[in-house]
Amino acid sequence: MIRAAIQGEAGAFSHAAARQLFGPDVHIVPCVSFDDLFAAVAEGKATHGVVPVENTLAGSVPGNLDRLMESGLHAVSETAVRVELCLMVHPGRSIPEITSAASHPVALQQCRRFFRRHPSIVPVTVYDTAGGVRELMDGGATFDAAIASRLAGELHGAEVAMEGIEDNHENYTRFFSVAVEPVPLVAGTLHACIGFVIEHEPGSLHGVLGHLAGADVNLTRLESRPIPGRPWEYRFYADLSGEHDRLSGALEDVRRSTLELRVLGTYSSS
Amino acid sequence: MIRAAIQGEAGAFSHAAARQLFGPDVHIVPCVSFDDLFAAVAEGKATHGVVPVENTLAGSVPGNLDRLMESGLHAVSETAVRVELCLMVHPGRSIPEITSAASHPVALQQCRRFFRRHPSIVPVTVYDTAGGVRELMDGGATFDAAIASRLAGELHGAEVAMEGIEDNHENYTRFFSVAVEPVPLVAGTLHACIGFVIEHEPGSLHGVLGHLAGADVNLTRLESRPIPGRPWEYRFYADLSGEHDRLSGALEDVRRSTLELRVLGTYSSS
Repeated sequence: MIRAAIQGEAGAFSHAAARQLFGPDVHIVPCVSFDDLFAAVAEGKATHGVVPVENTLAGSVPGNLDRLMESGLHAVSETAVRVELCLMVHPGRSIPEITSAASHPVALQQCRRFFRRHPSIVPVTVYDTAGGVRELMDGGATFDAAIASRLAGELHGAEVAMEGIEDNHENYTRFFSVAVEPVPLVAGTLHACIGFVIEHEPGSLHGVLGHLAGADVNLTRLESRPIPGRPWEYRFYADLSGEHDRLSGALEDVRRSTLELRVLGTYSSS
Repeated sequence: MIRAAIQGEAGAFSHAAARQLFGPDVHIVPCVSFDDLFAAVAEGKATHGVVPVENTLAGSVPGNLDRLMESGLHAVSETAVRVELCLMVHPGRSIPEITSAASHPVALQQCRRFFRRHPSIVPVTVYDTAGGVRELMDGGATFDAAIASRLAGELHGAEVAMEGIEDNHENYTRFFSVAVEPVPLVAGTLHACIGFVIEHEPGSLHGVLGHLAGADVNLTRLESRPIPGRPWEYRFYADLSGEHDRLSGALEDVRRSTLELRVLGTYSSS
């Protein structure tokens, strides 16, 4: 049976991602932090972890590719979830009465326009979108509204005071599912996520990208992240897609022209 | 007179950055948010803005290069500040009595090890490191410790319960100073920060980097950020350094092979 670790609790967008990946009856293992999520998978408390890696408005989810890199786990599939953020209140309350709204920091960042238009509503940080709704409805919360998915509102009996309050409705979060064992490379078009470190000199990144371009491998995303303890040095993470043999060959060439390379996962196009 | 807008208040690390850039007597213009900071410079309430762009542990400060891109302002110099985080308490209190510690989300992220070792201390988010110390000492705060610079503690009369609690002491934040007018390109070695958008096809980033490598321009950092409203499309931000003429020539080549290019700033090596 699939047991999918998520950061947050029932009703979180990670829960929606787990349903998309594994079906509506997936058993979720709620975790307080991303560190706990990776530990739950590594220790076998969960068969998979469902990890947000980027959002089309806020960008990368800081640190999650670093955690994947360090964990030794493998990305085995991906999915993208449409993020619709709703302002949830106790039934009967309306916006003019609201003075604070709680959500996860990434969700708050996606509602900058809403907070500019409603300066009397103060953003409050909680560890999870759905948990904010639960806390609101349990009573005793220090805030009087929460921003979360419609699903979280339904699960906890909250009312939608305003829907679609995200700055931009083209709002999607991409998730990896991660597991202890990698998926074997198979034929056809593959996606790969890699992490690598290169020499700190002009042209070294250009050389790496040349191996990819030469093999007709598409670089769909590139991110540089600091290497802790080595100021102003970076590890690059790249999302690639390409035909099996060409991608495999390009990765061997990349390995020879980098100081360090780890394939964080390969998986088929969904 | 220099009036430097910072996000946060006196004692913030941005205040330390402003002192490094403009001297100890710099007049600061405190702003609640980065949006307010950019507006203060654009509207002339401040002559400069001091904007954190990356940290050697947490990585990019999300959104600040996007704000610079959209604002039309220019980066005119840079500096790096050593970030030492201290746990501040009311005089006489000690760590076993502490149940919560407030700081800015980026600072909290830099103290992950401290929070793992002290699971009874809950992190609390505030908008500014120094503001957390002030709130703590003013009384009535919902938390009983704050994490900030030693300077903030001195300004507000707090006591250092533990110093250097950041995960890694190689902890620096790099700041741009931004202004309405750009610095004219001069001779010698220059730094430049650029933002660009390229065709979504194999090899296009490789082509851009080829212009830089060919001119012996060093690419010191590369970041991809989502373009709002265009899911899975990205703008790249790059930090470059190179000799004046070669850099200028490379930027003209880059302009011809990108869909969109903006030079966010050029400045001399410090």
